[in-house]
Amino acid sequence: MLFHVEMVVELPNDMPSNMADEIKSREKAYAQQLQTQGKWRHLWRIAGSYANVSIFDVESNAELHELLSGLPLFPYMAITVRPLCRHPSSIREDDR
Amino acid sequence: MLFHVEMVVELPNDMPSNMADEIKSREKAYAQQLQTQGKWRHLWRIAGSYANVSIFDVESNAELHELLSGLPLFPYMAITVRPLCRHPSSIREDDR
Amino acid sequence: MLFHVEMVVELPNDMPSNMADEIKSREKAYAQQLQTQGKWRHLWRIAGSYANVSIFDVESNAELHELLSGLPLFPYMAITVRPLCRHPSSIREDDR
Amino acid sequence: MLFHVEMVVELPNDMPSNMADEIKSREKAYAQQLQTQGKWRHLWRIAGSYANVSIFDVESNAELHELLSGLPLFPYMAITVRPLCRHPSSIREDDR
Amino acid sequence: MLFHVEMVVELPNDMPSNMADEIKSREKAYAQQLQTQGKWRHLWRIAGSYANVSIFDVESNAELHELLSGLPLFPYMAITVRPLCRHPSSIREDDR
Amino acid sequence: MLFHVEMVVELPNDMPSNMADEIKSREKAYAQQLQTQGKWRHLWRIAGSYANVSIFDVESNAELHELLSGLPLFPYMAITVRPLCRHPSSIREDDR
Amino acid sequence: MLFHVEMVVELPNDMPSNMADEIKSREKAYAQQLQTQGKWRHLWRIAGSYANVSIFDVESNAELHELLSGLPLFPYMAITVRPLCRHPSSIREDDR
Amino acid sequence: MLFHVEMVVELPNDMPSNMADEIKSREKAYAQQLQTQGKWRHLWRIAGSYANVSIFDVESNAELHELLSGLPLFPYMAITVRPLCRHPSSIREDDR
Amino acid sequence: MLFHVEMVVELPNDMPSNMADEIKSREKAYAQQLQTQGKWRHLWRIAGSYANVSIFDVESNAELHELLSGLPLFPYMAITVRPLCRHPSSIREDDR
Amino acid sequence: MLFHVEMVVELPNDMPSNMADEIKSREKAYAQQLQTQGKWRHLWRIAGSYANVSIFDVESNAELHELLSGLPLFPYMAITVRPLCRHPSSIREDDR
Repeated sequence: MLFHVEMVVELPNDMPSNMADEIKSREKAYAQQLQTQGKWRHLWRIAGSYANVSIFDVESNAELHELLSGLPLFPYMAITVRPLCRHPSSIREDDR
Repeated sequence: MLFHVEMVVELPNDMPSNMADEIKSREKAYAQQLQTQGKWRHLWRIAGSYANVSIFDVESNAELHELLSGLPLFPYMAITVRPLCRHPSSIREDDR
Repeated sequence: MLFHVEMVVELPNDMPSNMADEIKSREKAYAQQLQTQGKWRHLWRIAGSYANVSIFDVESNAELHELLSGLPLFPYMAITVRPLCRHPSSIREDDR
Repeated sequence: MLFHVEMVVELPNDMPSNMADEIKSREKAYAQQLQTQGKWRHLWRIAGSYANVSIFDVESNAELHELLSGLPLFPYMAITVRPLCRHPSSIREDDR
Repeated sequence: MLFHVEMVVELPNDMPSNMADEIKSREKAYAQQLQTQGKWRHLWRIAGSYANVSIFDVESNAELHELLSGLPLFPYMAITVRPLCRHPSSIREDDR
Repeated sequence: MLFHVEMVVELPNDMPSNMADEIKSREKAYAQQLQTQGKWRHLWRIAGSYANVSIFDVESNAELHELLSGLPLFPYMAITVRPLCRHPSSIREDDR
Repeated sequence: MLFHVEMVVELPNDMPSNMADEIKSREKAYAQQLQTQGKWRHLWRIAGSYANVSIFDVESNAELHELLSGLPLFPYMAITVRPLCRHPSSIREDDR
Repeated sequence: MLFHVEMVVELPNDMPSNMADEIKSREKAYAQQLQTQGKWRHLWRIAGSYANVSIFDVESNAELHELLSGLPLFPYMAITVRPLCRHPSSIREDDR
Repeated sequence: MLFHVEMVVELPNDMPSNMADEIKSREKAYAQQLQTQGKWRHLWRIAGSYANVSIFDVESNAELHELLSGLPLFPYMAITVRPLCRHPSSIREDDR
Repeated sequence: MLFHVEMVVELPNDMPSNMADEIKSREKAYAQQLQTQGKWRHLWRIAGSYANVSIFDVESNAELHELLSGLPLFPYMAITVRPLCRHPSSIREDDR
């Protein structure tokens, strides 16, 4: 089941850079692990912004929340979730 | 080059249903042709809305505009475009 | 799987009253059928508005969209969907 | 009498984690006590957000305010209240 | 129990003036009846707008909705409702 | 001359509690003095919010500004002002 | 007593041009009469818009509403009113 | 003197196509004449929208309003104007 | 050439009061100097707000920016600028 | 390929002035280098704001993001990007 997720990162200006680097490093590892597992299907940068558009593929709303709230950057992001479903004009079998 | 496109359909309530059907039929054929050509990479319905989220893959802004303004439903849609680019944490080679 | 759905009805002022009555009558029957099936768990009026807040219980985003787009009033409503999940402080087993 | 309440938690980034934990712990006990009393009828997490949607069942606006302003997280939340009433199409006797 | 209600009137430009006059006349009689009964405690015009701010005094959310949805102008108004309660600094016994 | 005033209090999270208490205490005394003088006609809490809706009765815009800017909480509030006038359907002589 | 008033004109596209001309002609005469009387102190066009910014000088909120609601274009305008008062840094005696 | 102007075209759905074509044809001639005169320095389409971003070079606010209100599409456009000036980091002499 | 300028002051809560006083004192002197020169034609307080509405009379956008960015409070204000021009119904010769 | 970019600078009030000066100095050098290379085609100040409107000319969305995220002020700016393309009424060959 697919969800459209937008994440806008808002790191506090006074966060020490080594702390920011450590969080971002964990975020990257976490994101890549979820992509490898097929849970995080797409991950794009919005050009010009410290923000992304993502497509998640999960079993349930609960799993989606568990994955998102586990993001190392979760306390520093504004997240918007919208449920997706198959479009009647889609020809791509996998975009269920 | 990828673009994130949202389309919200706003057909006038007083449009005759056969006219609406004819436009939607042409829209579907057009959408499937662009998908077959690889220009319209993803097409999802937003659950609960007469709206979609799409990913286009085009050569330029000009090609994007040409494709979108050619949509049979173009005069009846509110369209929002955002340029995408590769995310540094993405592991999916094709999500350029 | 639960979803929070808000529906604001916006009937055109020039719709003939017998047509409006017929649509509302079908809407009521449809809503009660879905409630009986357990798909539409809660349905409340927002005081002072021609609008409701509802909780749906469905298998998937796709089923949610199918149910909502089948509403007789669907072409005349602004609908907002948000996925819900169990709150860690909830003591109500059924509010999964 | 039912009220629809949304709460979005906005803890300051610089709050010490033990202070945050202590407030959240008191919040959980308070929420569970009100649920046991039947005052806080439903409590759901909005997937992807540090936020909830709740249904309160109280005698009056004054009781609602007293309960909400007593929340340990009250100073750190944006709260929106909307009065609900029975929907004419509802078949659920208790959703008064 | 007091509620703060804002009503913005949006009559369609093409409504025949005698129809508009007839609705407004019934609206005035209805408003004055509810004021006489003490249900509609205050009614003010917002200067420069075809809109009002009102204070209702009702037994419940359900009664509030019944009164508001019975307004002859109800189909032509945008209505916003907010529950009020006594302010701890108020010295006016009746502003409960 | 009546004015509709909304005040939303936004105290900084890091204000020492004794300082906050001292400001609120002065605010309460000031509010009660203006009520006694008949300048601050109504003062209601918006249920669930650290906010109020008030009706002021003043001689002029200048007097209104003088009273509002003298509020001890003035630097910590978002204030919205709207001029009111008598509604043609009002039966309450004093709601001028 | 001064008020800042913004008016945005929204004439329906299907209004016959002679009817529009007749309304605009009456509007102009009315505006000039109020300016001559000193009630409508300033009237500026916002460049690029069918809108104006105006300063009214009236005795009361009630007089302001009477003048504005008497505008021939009143049913076709979105009007925003804000009360003004003397600025402590103003050196212009008349900008009371 | 430069101004940043955005124009969003909103033609009514029920305008006859020959009337729309005639207006657009006059609009194009008018736009090209102003470009030739150097008044309309830049004109770009916003990809995916029936809208443009333009840079005007005029003597005064009054001249800007005269040019914009003379647009054949003026009654059917939402126009936003912002004054520009030379940026201290600009190296382009003509972008005054 | 006239411009409509709104300024909303947002001084940080933790600015020392003597620093705030010093800035406000310089702001007042600056504002009065520009008024004396005829550049700052009108300056009004918006009742109930730490904000003003002003009319500037300048030679160009560049001069307007130079004057506004020179305000001692400039780093602490949200400023909105709109170009004005003569209204065809104005009878006041000086409101060019 | 052209992009319309708006940048609003929001420097924290408590940034030391020498740090701010150093960042602005690097920003200016960076902006002038990109202008010299033809990547940053236009750069205008929005009168009255610490903000600019810019036109970028790049090969791809990716290049645009690389240039923008390299701005020394990037962490302190709100940036909005819109893709542009040639307008059918444009006579300026270079505004592709």
